[in-house]
Amino acid sequence: MRFEVTILGSSSATPIYNRNPTSQALNINDHLYLIDCGEGTQQQMLRFDIKASRISHIFISHLHGDHYLGLVGLLSSLHLNGRTKPLYLYGPAPLMEIIEIQLKYSETTLQFPITFKATDASIKEVLLDNQDIIVETIPLQHRIATTGFLFRQKKRSRKLIKERIDQLAIPVPYFSALKKGADYTAPDGTIHKNDTLTLDPDEPRSYAYCSDTLYGESYFDQITDATVLYHEATFLHAMIDRANDTHHTTALQAGEAALKTNAKKLLIGHFSARYKNLIELLDEARSIFPNTELAIEGKTFVIE
Amino acid sequence: MRFEVTILGSSSATPIYNRNPTSQALNINDHLYLIDCGEGTQQQMLRFDIKASRISHIFISHLHGDHYLGLVGLLSSLHLNGRTKPLYLYGPAPLMEIIEIQLKYSETTLQFPITFKATDASIKEVLLDNQDIIVETIPLQHRIATTGFLFRQKKRSRKLIKERIDQLAIPVPYFSALKKGADYTAPDGTIHKNDTLTLDPDEPRSYAYCSDTLYGESYFDQITDATVLYHEATFLHAMIDRANDTHHTTALQAGEAALKTNAKKLLIGHFSARYKNLIELLDEARSIFPNTELAIEGKTFVIE
Repeated sequence: MRFEVTILGSSSATPIYNRNPTSQALNINDHLYLIDCGEGTQQQMLRFDIKASRISHIFISHLHGDHYLGLVGLLSSLHLNGRTKPLYLYGPAPLMEIIEIQLKYSETTLQFPITFKATDASIKEVLLDNQDIIVETIPLQHRIATTGFLFRQKKRSRKLIKERIDQLAIPVPYFSALKKGADYTAPDGTIHKNDTLTLDPDEPRSYAYCSDTLYGESYFDQITDATVLYHEATFLHAMIDRANDTHHTTALQAGEAALKTNAKKLLIGHFSARYKNLIELLDEARSIFPNTELAIEGKTFVIE
Repeated sequence: MRFEVTILGSSSATPIYNRNPTSQALNINDHLYLIDCGEGTQQQMLRFDIKASRISHIFISHLHGDHYLGLVGLLSSLHLNGRTKPLYLYGPAPLMEIIEIQLKYSETTLQFPITFKATDASIKEVLLDNQDIIVETIPLQHRIATTGFLFRQKKRSRKLIKERIDQLAIPVPYFSALKKGADYTAPDGTIHKNDTLTLDPDEPRSYAYCSDTLYGESYFDQITDATVLYHEATFLHAMIDRANDTHHTTALQAGEAALKTNAKKLLIGHFSARYKNLIELLDEARSIFPNTELAIEGKTFVIE
C-alpha cells in the first residue's frame, strides 16, 4: 500500500524566497490527505504535480496564518474547477467561521459540501477511521490551540505464501479467510494450519506530524515508534530561549524527540527565515538522531 | 518624478503554474502603493525585490479571493518583521472584518496601526490626496461591489529655463515663485515676464487601474486620457458570452476601452488560466489598440 508524504512548504511565518509556509500532501493508498495549507499551497501543488481535485481530507493544525492562509483560495479553486464531491475538513472550531465570512463576502456558494469536524487541542481523539488508516490528533503545546496528527495504518492482513497455495491448489474464495488467520481443510480432510500457509503481515506504518510546539514529553507516548516522525525545528539550539519564548522547537530537540520516541526516521521543517542555508539545522538534528532528513519543498518521503 | 508600476500577478481566480493572482506595486516618487494583493503576493515581492516594508498604502478593488487573499499574510509578516509605522488601507467595508477575525483567532495584535477607509463602489470619490498624487475610486460593474483606482499626479510646477536664469543671475529664493508663474523684477526695475523664464510643466501623468469589470461606458469619462490604462482582459472575444456572464472583459473590449478613452498605453491582465500562451490575447487587443502590452509578472512599466 502506497504511503508517502510530499512536502509543499518548509518555512515558518515570515516569508523567504523559494520556500513556502507549511503544507504537506499525504498519499495513502492513492487517496490524498492535505496537512496544513499555508499561503501559496495551490501553486506548490501545481509545481509538484499534486492534483488538488483528488484531495479528500484536509487537516489544519492551528490558526496561525502560515498553516492555513492558503485554504480559502484552494476551496475557491476547487469550486471554480467544478468539484462536487464532498471534502472533509478538520481543524480548530473558528476555522469554519473564517472560511464562511470570506465566502459570504465574495458571494460564493461552494458547489461541494464540506464536512467539518472541529479539533480539540486539549485531548487526543480519533478524527478519521477508514479502510486504510486511523487519524488522531496529537495535542501540542503552542501559543494558541494546536494539534499534530498521527496517521496509523490499519493492521494489515496476513500474507499468503504463494508457493504453498499453488502446491495445495487452494481455490481463490478461501484467500480472504486465510488472510484473516483461518486454517484450511483440504478436500481429503487434512487440516493445514494457517501459519504454514501465510506469513505475518507487515507492521502497520505510521506518520506522526508534530507542527509548532514547545518541546515536551507530553506527546511522546502517543508518537512512540513512528515509522516517520515529522517534527518542527524552527531554530538552531543556540536560540533555545527564542524557541521557548515563541513555543517552538530547536533542531537538537527535534533529534531528541525522535530518539526518545524510537522513531525510525525523522523529518524536520518549519525553518525560520533567518536560516538561508539549512545544513546546520540538519547537522544539529543528526548529531542526536542520524536518520534525519530536511522536509523541503518537492521532496517525497516513502513511509516504510 | 518616478512613476512606475511593477506587475506581481496576472492571473484570474483559478491558479496556473508560474502566474500569480492580481497584485501590482506602484512606485510614485519612491513611495510604494500596492494595488490588490492576491495569494502569494509576498513571495512575488521577494522575487522581484519590492520591499514590503516600504509600502505605505494598500488598495483592494473587491473581495474576490484572487484580489485580496495575500493580505492577511502580508500584514502578519510586516508585524513579525517589526513594522511600527502606520499603514493606510482602502477597500470594501467588510475587509476589516475579514482581517480582524483572522488576527483575533491567531491571537495577533499588530504592532502598527492600520488606518482603514472603506470604498463605496456606487460613487467615485477621492481616497487620498498627498504631495504627489490624487487617488480616486473608479466604480466598476462586477458581480460584487468593485472599484478600480485612478492615480493622477498633481499638477506640476513650471520648469525654469536654466540658461535664462543664469543669464539674469536670478537668486535662488525667487525660484519657487517663478515655478508658480510669477514674473521677475530685476534690480534695475526691468520686468521679465514669467513665460520668458519658464516652460509649461509636464502634463500630469495618470494610471487608471480597471480590474474585474463588465465592459461598459459608465467608467470611460473618468479614465479618459490616461497615460497608462490597465484593463482586465480575462478572455478572448470568442468567449464574449462567458465574459458577460461572469462580468469580465475580453481582450478586444480592453483595446476598445483604451481607444475610446484616448489612453496613451494599454496594459492587459487578469488572464483566464485556460490561456497557456498569452500572445493571442495581446494580438487581439493590439488589433484595436496597437500600443498594448501584457501586464505579466516581473514587468515594470514607466508611466510616461
